[in-house]
Amino acid sequence: MKTKQCPLPYNPKDLIQLAHGGGGKLTHELISTMFYPAFSNPILNEQHDGAIFDCKEGRMAYTTDSFVVDPIFFNGGDIGDLAVNGTVNDLTCCGATPLFLTAAFIIEEGFPMSDLQRIVESMKKASQKAGVAIVTGDTKVVDKGKCDKIFINTSGIGIIDPNIHIHSDRIEEGDSIIISGKIGQHGICILSTRESLGFETDVASDTASLNHMIQSLSESVPIHFMRDPTRGGLSSTLNEIADSASVRIELDEESLPIGESVLSACELLGLDPLYIANEGLMLIFVPKKHAEKTVELLKQFPEGKDACIIGKVTAKNTDGAVLLNTLYGGQRIIEMLRGEQLPRIC
Amino acid sequence: MKTKQCPLPYNPKDLIQLAHGGGGKLTHELISTMFYPAFSNPILNEQHDGAIFDCKEGRMAYTTDSFVVDPIFFNGGDIGDLAVNGTVNDLTCCGATPLFLTAAFIIEEGFPMSDLQRIVESMKKASQKAGVAIVTGDTKVVDKGKCDKIFINTSGIGIIDPNIHIHSDRIEEGDSIIISGKIGQHGICILSTRESLGFETDVASDTASLNHMIQSLSESVPIHFMRDPTRGGLSSTLNEIADSASVRIELDEESLPIGESVLSACELLGLDPLYIANEGLMLIFVPKKHAEKTVELLKQFPEGKDACIIGKVTAKNTDGAVLLNTLYGGQRIIEMLRGEQLPRIC
Repeated sequence: MKTKQCPLPYNPKDLIQLAHGGGGKLTHELISTMFYPAFSNPILNEQHDGAIFDCKEGRMAYTTDSFVVDPIFFNGGDIGDLAVNGTVNDLTCCGATPLFLTAAFIIEEGFPMSDLQRIVESMKKASQKAGVAIVTGDTKVVDKGKCDKIFINTSGIGIIDPNIHIHSDRIEEGDSIIISGKIGQHGICILSTRESLGFETDVASDTASLNHMIQSLSESVPIHFMRDPTRGGLSSTLNEIADSASVRIELDEESLPIGESVLSACELLGLDPLYIANEGLMLIFVPKKHAEKTVELLKQFPEGKDACIIGKVTAKNTDGAVLLNTLYGGQRIIEMLRGEQLPRIC
Repeated sequence: MKTKQCPLPYNPKDLIQLAHGGGGKLTHELISTMFYPAFSNPILNEQHDGAIFDCKEGRMAYTTDSFVVDPIFFNGGDIGDLAVNGTVNDLTCCGATPLFLTAAFIIEEGFPMSDLQRIVESMKKASQKAGVAIVTGDTKVVDKGKCDKIFINTSGIGIIDPNIHIHSDRIEEGDSIIISGKIGQHGICILSTRESLGFETDVASDTASLNHMIQSLSESVPIHFMRDPTRGGLSSTLNEIADSASVRIELDEESLPIGESVLSACELLGLDPLYIANEGLMLIFVPKKHAEKTVELLKQFPEGKDACIIGKVTAKNTDGAVLLNTLYGGQRIIEMLRGEQLPRIC
C-alpha cells in the first residue's frame, strides 16, 4: 500500500463505516490518507504488521493505557492528546525516555471523519511535542451503539538511563513529596463539560507530556520515586505508594496547590479535590536536601510553574498510611478512593 | 499493593461495576485477585505503572491490536486467546520471537465477573502456550450500553534474530506461496455462532499461536516474507503483499485448502472463502526449491497439518496483481475486499 495524498479536510458529512474496520479497501484508504500522513516516520512508513527497530540500549520500560474519556473533546485537550500524553507520562514515571508509541482505535460506526481527523491531528501535535514516534497501529470499527464514539489505546516503550532507578523501595524516611502543579484540574474540567450536569467553569484540563521536564530534573536531582496521580486522584496514588513502599506519608493541607475554580467547584458539588483525577501532574519523592532545588527546576517549565512541596515521608517499615495535617491543626487519615467518583475521566 | 489470594471461582452473580475501572479500591481488588495471579511473572509482579526489563538484543518488533470480536465466546476459542494469539502471530510475521505482551481491558458495567475470569484464564493458557509474558496492563470500565461486553487490546514486543530478515522487498519472482492450514475456519465459525443467523456448523476457529512452528521453520528455510491473513481474508492480504512488493501473484484454485463445512457454508451464504477471515494461519513466501521442505516441516506441527503450496510469484516490478487460476482452466483477478463482509470478526 502506498501512502496517498491526505484529502484534508474531511467533510463533516463523511462518516465512519463498518468497512473502515474490515481490513479491505476502506481500511487501507483510512490508514493511508489519515493515519500515515499524520504520524509519518521511517518505522511506521514501512507499513508492516508491526514496527521493527534497532535497540542497542539496556533497560526498557513498556506500558499500555486505553482511553475512554467522555466527552472526547474538552477544554484544554481531547481524547487524542490525552492518549499520547498519558502513555508518555507513564513511561516517564518509570524513569524512561519515551521512544515509540502504538495507537489502536476502536471507532463507532457513523463517527464523523472530521472528528477523527481532529483527534489524529491532536495526537500528531502531542507526539511531536513529546518527541515520540507512533510506529504502528490498529483500527477497528464496531456497529453503531456498540461503543461510545471512539476509544483509543496507546502502548509505549522507552529507554531507561542506566543511572536512573525509580522504585518504591528507594523511598526513604524524610523524603520530601513534591507535586508538579495544581490538583483536580482535569477531573473538574471533564465534570464541567459533561452536558447533562448544567455546571460550567473555566477550568482547563492539565493534560500535558511531562517527559522533557522530568528528564531535565533527573539530570540534577536523584529522584527516588515518581508517579502520575491520575484516576483516583492524589489520595489513591499516595495510598498505593505508601502501601507498596510500606511507608507513612504526611501531607500538609495548607500546602496543597488547588486553583480557585477547582476549589469552588468541589465545594459546590461536595467533592474532595484529593480524589479528583489529574492528567499532567507528577508526584515526585526526593531526599529532603534536594526538595527546594527540585521545585525551582520544575518551575522553569510551564507544566511545572505551580510545583510545590506538599508533604514528607515520616516513617519506613510501617503499615502504609497517608495522613493529612489539616488547616485547623488536626490530622486525618486519607484513604484510597472507594467506589467511583467520576467514571470515564480518561 | 500486595497480591491477594484469588477468590476463585467468581460467582456468576458478581458483576463488573463502574468503580472497577475507577482507579480506587475496587480496581485494585480486581487487578490483585484476578489479573496478577493469572499472568504472574517477575516483571508484572513489580506492579509499576509500566513494565521494566533488560534488553540486550539488537532488533525488535513492536505491534498492537484491539479485539472486539462478537460473540466473545465461540467454538475453539474466545476473545482472550484470540487477543494473545493475534499479537503473538503479528510479531511472528515480523520474524520476531515474541517476548512480552500488554493487556488492556475495556469492560462494560454489569459484565459478569465469571466471564471475565474465563477470558483471563484463556489468556493465561494462550500466553503460556506461546511462551510469552503479559507484563503490564490497564482496566477501564464504561457505563452499561457504552461498549459491547468487553474489548481487549494487546500490544507485544519481540526480538528479531539477526539472521532473519522478513520484508516484502525480499520476495522474488518464482517464490512459492505456502499457506499453513485450511482457510475460512475462523470467519465461518464466528458467523455460525452469531445467534441471530440461525445457521450452525461444526467449524471451529483456527485461533492458535504460530510462533513455535515458524521459529522452527525459520531455522531450516530462508523465509522471504510472511503475513497472517486475518481480516479481509487471503485475498486482501495477498493484494496488500502484491501491492507493497510490486509483484504478480498467481494462485491455483485447486490447491486451496478449504474444509467441507466451510465450503458448504460459503455456498449456502453466497460467500467467497478467499475473503473469509482466518486467525491461526500464516502465508509464507519461500524460494521454490525450499517449498516442499517448508510444507513438510509445517506438517510436523498440529497447526500446520494442512499446510500446502497454493501459488507462486510470477513477475516482479509490475503493478501488483493477484490472479486465480480457476478449476475450469480460466484466470480471474482477485481484488482486495470491498466493503465489509463480516464485521467484528476479531
